[in-house]
Amino acid sequence: MPYPEEFTGIGVLSTDSWRTPQRVTYPAKSFDPKDIDIQIDACGVCGSDLHTVQGHWRPIRDKMVVGHEIVGTVVAIGSQCNSGFKIGDRVGVGAQVLSCLECERCEEGNEPYCAKFVSCYNRPYDDGYISQGGYASHVRVHEHFVIPIPESIPSELAAPLLCGGITVYSPLRRNGCGSGKRVGIVGIGGLGHMAVLFAKAMGAEVYAFSRRVNKREDALKLGADHYVATSETPGWESELKSKLDLVLVCASSLSDIELDKYVTSMKVGGKIISVCVPEKHEKLSLSAFGLAGVHISNSALGSPAEIRELLDLVVEKGIKIWVETLPVGESGVSEALQRLDKGDVRYRFTLVDFDKEFPRA
Amino acid sequence: MPYPEEFTGIGVLSTDSWRTPQRVTYPAKSFDPKDIDIQIDACGVCGSDLHTVQGHWRPIRDKMVVGHEIVGTVVAIGSQCNSGFKIGDRVGVGAQVLSCLECERCEEGNEPYCAKFVSCYNRPYDDGYISQGGYASHVRVHEHFVIPIPESIPSELAAPLLCGGITVYSPLRRNGCGSGKRVGIVGIGGLGHMAVLFAKAMGAEVYAFSRRVNKREDALKLGADHYVATSETPGWESELKSKLDLVLVCASSLSDIELDKYVTSMKVGGKIISVCVPEKHEKLSLSAFGLAGVHISNSALGSPAEIRELLDLVVEKGIKIWVETLPVGESGVSEALQRLDKGDVRYRFTLVDFDKEFPRA
Repeated sequence: MPYPEEFTGIGVLSTDSWRTPQRVTYPAKSFDPKDIDIQIDACGVCGSDLHTVQGHWRPIRDKMVVGHEIVGTVVAIGSQCNSGFKIGDRVGVGAQVLSCLECERCEEGNEPYCAKFVSCYNRPYDDGYISQGGYASHVRVHEHFVIPIPESIPSELAAPLLCGGITVYSPLRRNGCGSGKRVGIVGIGGLGHMAVLFAKAMGAEVYAFSRRVNKREDALKLGADHYVATSETPGWESELKSKLDLVLVCASSLSDIELDKYVTSMKVGGKIISVCVPEKHEKLSLSAFGLAGVHISNSALGSPAEIRELLDLVVEKGIKIWVETLPVGESGVSEALQRLDKGDVRYRFTLVDFDKEFPRA
Repeated sequence: MPYPEEFTGIGVLSTDSWRTPQRVTYPAKSFDPKDIDIQIDACGVCGSDLHTVQGHWRPIRDKMVVGHEIVGTVVAIGSQCNSGFKIGDRVGVGAQVLSCLECERCEEGNEPYCAKFVSCYNRPYDDGYISQGGYASHVRVHEHFVIPIPESIPSELAAPLLCGGITVYSPLRRNGCGSGKRVGIVGIGGLGHMAVLFAKAMGAEVYAFSRRVNKREDALKLGADHYVATSETPGWESELKSKLDLVLVCASSLSDIELDKYVTSMKVGGKIISVCVPEKHEKLSLSAFGLAGVHISNSALGSPAEIRELLDLVVEKGIKIWVETLPVGESGVSEALQRLDKGDVRYRFTLVDFDKEFPRA
């Protein structure tokens, strides 16, 4: 059975075999009158995709199809949709596909913190269907989580904004990033490189932090005003003492981050926000004595309204994130996941050529 | 030698003998032209006093005189003082007696976070003199850290505001406590009882948290709108889910505080601020996954300007903290420290009758 009963994707059959993804077909989620069907044109490759197929967070479903930075074309609209989407619109879907839409958190634009959060893939809907992601022909999503893509942003550059981008943009805007502020970005990778671009576009003085000196040139090209190679600069924290207003931790693990040193570099009342999604057992641990009025927090994704705002900023400031494209398919997905596992990407993959892998009816 | 060369106080000779304080004399700190001499009339008894004489934080000096909630009368003014104090003024001194007064932190009203912070007792000045506290005849302090006491606040009620009071007031005001906010106060003791009074006076809806039910009546009398006996109310955190804007942790140790449960009770972006000064080895530890956008921070004391603001609030709202007085002297200090060690105080001791123990010239 083809679409609309079944979708086709590039899936992982077990966490042991994540390096050899397979072309798979699977039943689509049942169509809700608030759902929109999207034929996919591009999908970013996120660190979460890798964590998931490697089984770091929870067991994976059968024929696990990941990918939650989806750009595609509207091909069906449920009878109760009223967001104004039309067949043929270019739209995006990020890492969240449902929330209750009724609780205080949802009403305050905090959908990612709703207790009924459903992630784009590997999470059960109420009826038991386990969500599937965007390395696929189609995705079916509640209209609230469908985002219009502005015309001037190419699909391969729009896709990574929908999870990676919003993950760093939301905490920057919520915590005062802007003109007159000194903002540190820790970890210059997929997330961090976008954070440098956005923080600079928002008017901040940007400090890029990475362990070694090798990303210096890139960081400065991205717009950083300063670069600190933390493991090669003993005492860096004393030199920055009491300077920073906000630090965004974009590293892929908290274990290597010497939080107490960042605390030293902060103003009283400054904020350190982690967007790192660590392995489950990792704990934040820091000296209660040394905190000195600095706030520690984390942040998860951002609301659909914030994603729209980010896309507007990208258009307005002409921001260009750094993306390498790979063709979707067993070989392209395998390469993307394995190179991501080695950190061999500058700085984000987007899967493309969906029309070749999943020919249109 | 009497004053001004020597002061007399009630001191502790060793951490082993903190239960039997002795009357001692000791040289005064050298008189700086910016110093003011205060003849002491009242001194609050703070948890820090007990931590210090028990040796929890650092070795103690010889003839250790603690006490940093001092109210007294100006009896000498240095030649370079220009804060407008006059002989005979009733003034106060809190837990900080010096900072550099030049750095960015000092200039922004963050003196307690200055690298050159000198605490009221058991810390060396630049010349090596180790500061002595307020269970004594006199104290000699830089004018910047001398606070005028409004006429309508009795000395025994003013004293505890100067450390305990400001310690809870500063984080409340800096973190948005006020009308329309739900504010939790954790730990109903010396600090917590003042925090309930202040948060209520600032217009917040106040949630008092204590382990057992036994402080319920007091908390409601103090003005709390709600009381939660955490260890006797399984699942309290689910009932409060996503309700609180700000939580102030006033407990004497962090070990017993189930931070993850308080996180559950917070709004997205809410703040948990600890004013607890824990034993040195204690670490804050929490699940990075579960933080859900909540900020964790601490706070230390408050600036002299904030202390003045607090005293104004106390006058304006007619706030009455709950104080038990004891006569200063070997026996009174011994009783105060030992009862504080057992938690046997509702809710703060102030030492009085200084004129009897230290007759005026």
